[in-house]
Amino acid sequence: MPRPSKALLDRDRIGATALALVDSHGDFSVPQIARALGVQTASVYHHVEGRAGIIELLRSRIAETIDASTLELRPWDRALEAWARSYRAAFAEHPRSIPLLTMSQVASPEVLVQYERAVELLIEAGFAMADVMPVITALDNLVLGSALDLAAPESMWQPAPDGSTPLLERALAAVGGGRRADAAFDLALAGFLDHVRGLAASAAPA
Amino acid sequence: MPRPSKALLDRDRIGATALALVDSHGDFSVPQIARALGVQTASVYHHVEGRAGIIELLRSRIAETIDASTLELRPWDRALEAWARSYRAAFAEHPRSIPLLTMSQVASPEVLVQYERAVELLIEAGFAMADVMPVITALDNLVLGSALDLAAPESMWQPAPDGSTPLLERALAAVGGGRRADAAFDLALAGFLDHVRGLAASAAPA
Repeated sequence: MPRPSKALLDRDRIGATALALVDSHGDFSVPQIARALGVQTASVYHHVEGRAGIIELLRSRIAETIDASTLELRPWDRALEAWARSYRAAFAEHPRSIPLLTMSQVASPEVLVQYERAVELLIEAGFAMADVMPVITALDNLVLGSALDLAAPESMWQPAPDGSTPLLERALAAVGGGRRADAAFDLALAGFLDHVRGLAASAAPA
Repeated sequence: MPRPSKALLDRDRIGATALALVDSHGDFSVPQIARALGVQTASVYHHVEGRAGIIELLRSRIAETIDASTLELRPWDRALEAWARSYRAAFAEHPRSIPLLTMSQVASPEVLVQYERAVELLIEAGFAMADVMPVITALDNLVLGSALDLAAPESMWQPAPDGSTPLLERALAAVGGGRRADAAFDLALAGFLDHVRGLAASAAPA
């Protein structure tokens, strides 16, 4: 038996359509979503709380591909590293969503629960309470910058054809093929973890 | 005497129009630029090498607001830090340009010359040639992630109204007002510089 046509419209389809629009055009509008789903714009608004609600659907869809069980690993630095790697992979699939998501407040319950766990992890590790959000935010920034880079061309610089960038050419030639973005992320993540291990050690009671 | 109407169309106007479109919509098309400037789409193509050429105009426009003289400072870590701060401020003004620019190869001469200087700085500082691009790329990632964060709302998380994120609420309350993004960037940049100082020291001849 065919399902009623109303079933064509639900939060899941709205989120999937918005994400496809963002992936190809860098943005979405509610009328575009309605057109793609063959419904009236007003019908879309029956299912979501405006544009902000759709942005949270995008955030939830991408976040559900992050392996949140990484945050249960111990010690804390192993957990944070594994979470960062999974988080980067999830966003590298949808680089054009990144500015939309960073420019609006996180309200998605599926995402907030991951942050709650990350905060718990850092408190347990002995970080001073005032350091917890700066540490998490710095890791967010590193992950999102690296996710954009993972989605970037393997060969990111086109040395000047007039030969005015000889050192850049040499430095590019010295990097092993195929791991450009990973090498930079590994370096940045190692530096970040070293630095925050020091913060945790200095804040934790002896 | 009025200037001929042809002067309405030049690379500078095309770049400015593309940037305004990206700032508000996250993307641009050549017909949109032509419409905004009151010319035919084909006329735009007389001035730029297609869409990729316009992306490089965007890159040049934003990069020219980076203070490249920072790369002349010494010692090298002071130069790198000052460059990173100026680079972050420039991109924080145009967060929606970031995925477009990271997804295409850097060809803008004004930008390549900054990278040539950064490579020179790191070679002079004693970095192994194979580490130079990973160090620069890791810094790029950190800067672009932090630029997105600087453009983000001051209050980035909306704790769950059902009280299910009590630790997140405490951690947010412990951060001093007004410096959320700066605190995270300072932490990440300090960690990055500490880590790469170690790389330079281990690679440099004694």
